[in-house]
Amino acid sequence: MSSHDRLAELTARLAAIHDLDKVVSLLLWDQDVMMPRGGAAARAEQVATLRRLAHEQFTAPETGRLLDELAPYAAQLPADSNEASLIRVARRDFDKARRVPADLRAEMSRTASLARAAWVDARAASDFPAFLPFLQKTIDLKRRYIECFEPTAEPYDVLLDDFEEGMTAADVRAVFEPFKQQIVPLIAAVAPVADRVSDGCLHGAFPVDRQREFCLSVVRRFGFTDEQWRLDPTVHPFETSLSVADIRITTRYYPDFLSPALFGIMHECGHGLYEQGIDPSLERTPLCRGASLGLHESQSRLWENLVGRSRAAWTFFYPALQRTFPDRLDGVDLETFYRAINKVEPSLIRVEADELTYGLHVILRFELEQEMIGGSLPLAELPDAWNARMKAYLGVDVPDAAKGVLQDVHWSLGFVGYFPTYTIGSIMSAQIWQSALADLPDLSEQFARGEFLALRHWLRDHLHRYGRKFTPRETLEKAAGTTAIDAGPYVAYLRAKFHDIYELG
Amino acid sequence: MSSHDRLAELTARLAAIHDLDKVVSLLLWDQDVMMPRGGAAARAEQVATLRRLAHEQFTAPETGRLLDELAPYAAQLPADSNEASLIRVARRDFDKARRVPADLRAEMSRTASLARAAWVDARAASDFPAFLPFLQKTIDLKRRYIECFEPTAEPYDVLLDDFEEGMTAADVRAVFEPFKQQIVPLIAAVAPVADRVSDGCLHGAFPVDRQREFCLSVVRRFGFTDEQWRLDPTVHPFETSLSVADIRITTRYYPDFLSPALFGIMHECGHGLYEQGIDPSLERTPLCRGASLGLHESQSRLWENLVGRSRAAWTFFYPALQRTFPDRLDGVDLETFYRAINKVEPSLIRVEADELTYGLHVILRFELEQEMIGGSLPLAELPDAWNARMKAYLGVDVPDAAKGVLQDVHWSLGFVGYFPTYTIGSIMSAQIWQSALADLPDLSEQFARGEFLALRHWLRDHLHRYGRKFTPRETLEKAAGTTAIDAGPYVAYLRAKFHDIYELG
Repeated sequence: MSSHDRLAELTARLAAIHDLDKVVSLLLWDQDVMMPRGGAAARAEQVATLRRLAHEQFTAPETGRLLDELAPYAAQLPADSNEASLIRVARRDFDKARRVPADLRAEMSRTASLARAAWVDARAASDFPAFLPFLQKTIDLKRRYIECFEPTAEPYDVLLDDFEEGMTAADVRAVFEPFKQQIVPLIAAVAPVADRVSDGCLHGAFPVDRQREFCLSVVRRFGFTDEQWRLDPTVHPFETSLSVADIRITTRYYPDFLSPALFGIMHECGHGLYEQGIDPSLERTPLCRGASLGLHESQSRLWENLVGRSRAAWTFFYPALQRTFPDRLDGVDLETFYRAINKVEPSLIRVEADELTYGLHVILRFELEQEMIGGSLPLAELPDAWNARMKAYLGVDVPDAAKGVLQDVHWSLGFVGYFPTYTIGSIMSAQIWQSALADLPDLSEQFARGEFLALRHWLRDHLHRYGRKFTPRETLEKAAGTTAIDAGPYVAYLRAKFHDIYELG
Repeated sequence: MSSHDRLAELTARLAAIHDLDKVVSLLLWDQDVMMPRGGAAARAEQVATLRRLAHEQFTAPETGRLLDELAPYAAQLPADSNEASLIRVARRDFDKARRVPADLRAEMSRTASLARAAWVDARAASDFPAFLPFLQKTIDLKRRYIECFEPTAEPYDVLLDDFEEGMTAADVRAVFEPFKQQIVPLIAAVAPVADRVSDGCLHGAFPVDRQREFCLSVVRRFGFTDEQWRLDPTVHPFETSLSVADIRITTRYYPDFLSPALFGIMHECGHGLYEQGIDPSLERTPLCRGASLGLHESQSRLWENLVGRSRAAWTFFYPALQRTFPDRLDGVDLETFYRAINKVEPSLIRVEADELTYGLHVILRFELEQEMIGGSLPLAELPDAWNARMKAYLGVDVPDAAKGVLQDVHWSLGFVGYFPTYTIGSIMSAQIWQSALADLPDLSEQFARGEFLALRHWLRDHLHRYGRKFTPRETLEKAAGTTAIDAGPYVAYLRAKFHDIYELG
């Protein structure tokens, strides 16, 4: 068999596995958005079957044989060719996937199902002890998972690698520590003058149908089209792509609060634009997704915050918003609205946090995760540790576990090492933004005219189109000119923005 | 390995294949109901991949080995046990699936894709010659398919068996011939007095949102619940089930004509009730579906016609319908409405045909299919043969191919042998109805009070719960007390109903 034939065979195998992955995405989208409740039991089986088949097909000996045989061929190809990238990435995924025995994988999956259900009840009852044994089991399984891999500098590195390839706990700390040192005082500086900004105009009657129409009019300017996108309501907003031309985003509307849907839709649209911008030649390959969770989040945050909470964008959108909700906004001027959507207020819940305080919610979780995995924090003491750190970083008192340690679903699902990618993403968004601004210095003027196409094209050309061909660092270099994740631009952006809004002088 | 272990292994294999089949159903539902147009290319790949995997998994040598080894065990089990039924039905499916070589299967699949696209264009242009080469290829492939099987009395029998297991062309003719002999004169008798019934009250402004609400109020009484069902709009109505507790029906609303959505939804609800009524112990097995297309259609027709077009049901529903559409129906009495929904009018299009003439549309197709497969009808002469038979049976002149031979999608998809099941279903619906009436003599009084539960439970107990455990004939025997498909009750029902409505004396 020639290398060409072998590559064709590998590509066909990986294409079928990609199809299975995408079909799982549809199963989960449908489950959250469309499925009648009665379908839950069968749906769980369908998802499990497809995941099992995808895993079996991928880890089959034939995949390894093809990868082995193709290694000399790949070495001759340009490293940035689709073919060499496919072989390189598939090799890495294969080696990781083969390390975890089927029984451990099955136990992790079973435990996640049980722990997720237990978490739902425990959160409802604000009862951390009820969740504790499931968390313990989850962490124990994570330790067994870590043992499947070559030793790393810190055990946590293995977990992080699943979400942000190549990044270590030390790398993250090196980014987060100086970030924290600069943000905590900035938040403290805002506190005494908090009353300079009110978000009163965002609360009140905002009929859901008009929210939807207005939000659609915004994201249509970002790139949403009926030909390739859907927008549907759900309890927990998310984005999923079934192909580069079938992007689905969801949101949650509050009839008495404008912000969640408005900025949530921009956020999910940012994720969707990344998926939509991947080079179509990568379709049906494992390269056809974002390079990492952090880079994905950089795109959602960029559209939500750097674009969506900018004075320039609202110079264009605000008159239409006022016409949509005249009862609420007729007497509210643009500057008041702009400040309202950027109001800073240390709070208990991560997903409701403002742009300035959000990072500390994440850093707190990152620190606790390392201690849980490292063993220095007994799990029974987790709520106290959580509450103490909330007080230290954000100055807030946590009243109960539901509003504290039990608020997020991640740990119940076994997602340990996921949280840091949120703030890594925010930080990279400012690096990428700086780079885009260098090429497109009049972005603000464009936004004020309702023009967002140049930015979208720039992001596609410098980031989106590469998909997962390169490592996250290499990909960042293409978009931001550096492989180094650097909080500098993000801190500078936050400082300038909130000094201005809160007149900190 | 014990028989118990072997059965567990077979059951697990078949469960995974069932999952794949159901996921394909979701992919197709989503494609028609939800998917943005841009998703079409990837969706075709996803469907093809899942179908290929399901076929590979099912026809793998392990399946055959397990079935061989389990044969002595199955022989000791009660024939009507779930276990014996599973082994028996899986054996039959396996033997059929193994007979068709992969390359023929692939060619049929490819041809169906191309022929379907060609049919869409040909129908739009009313251009039969443009479709002819695709039809020729389809029929040629059907002949090759037939050759994969043991010789049957007539080649067409092989095709029929895929849709109505165990039924032969001779069986169908023995049912259809006397039926035709009795229906043609009945239609002719109505023609001179056609003006005794007008369906004018069904045309006019029927706002779609109110149609939806009213139709839902009807099928909720039949068994539709938000917990286990969905109703969505589509161009081509259908029913699909993703589990016995996740049933999805679709419909097409006409803003100026009430009948299509109203009776279409009842029809699809009938299909859904069959799927929903299957014993939950059969979930995730190949027994978890209707016993045949004919029996499925017996249920949709029963709810659409024997229930949904009955005077008794409208005695209950009509006041609410009048309140829903007062502008259209305030001056229309129940009897006028009842006659309107049962108006007989020979027409060109099968899917728009009334209850009395529908069967002849089917018989015409059944006759032409046999001649096409047998070779006695050159395909180029098909339009003339079609038009001549439309004139003979229904007295109508076919103006063009779009309204004639090109109206249905079935042949382009390679569905030859499918049409007869529609009328087999109508005929069985009257046999089953007769049997239900013997047990529940006051059904009409129940309907007039808005009560449909006793009928649904009777159908579940006598038909639905068995799923595909038994052959269609055996299943019919459980529901109707006979293995013989007999048009007698259906003809008697039609004669009584239309003698009454048209006052034929």
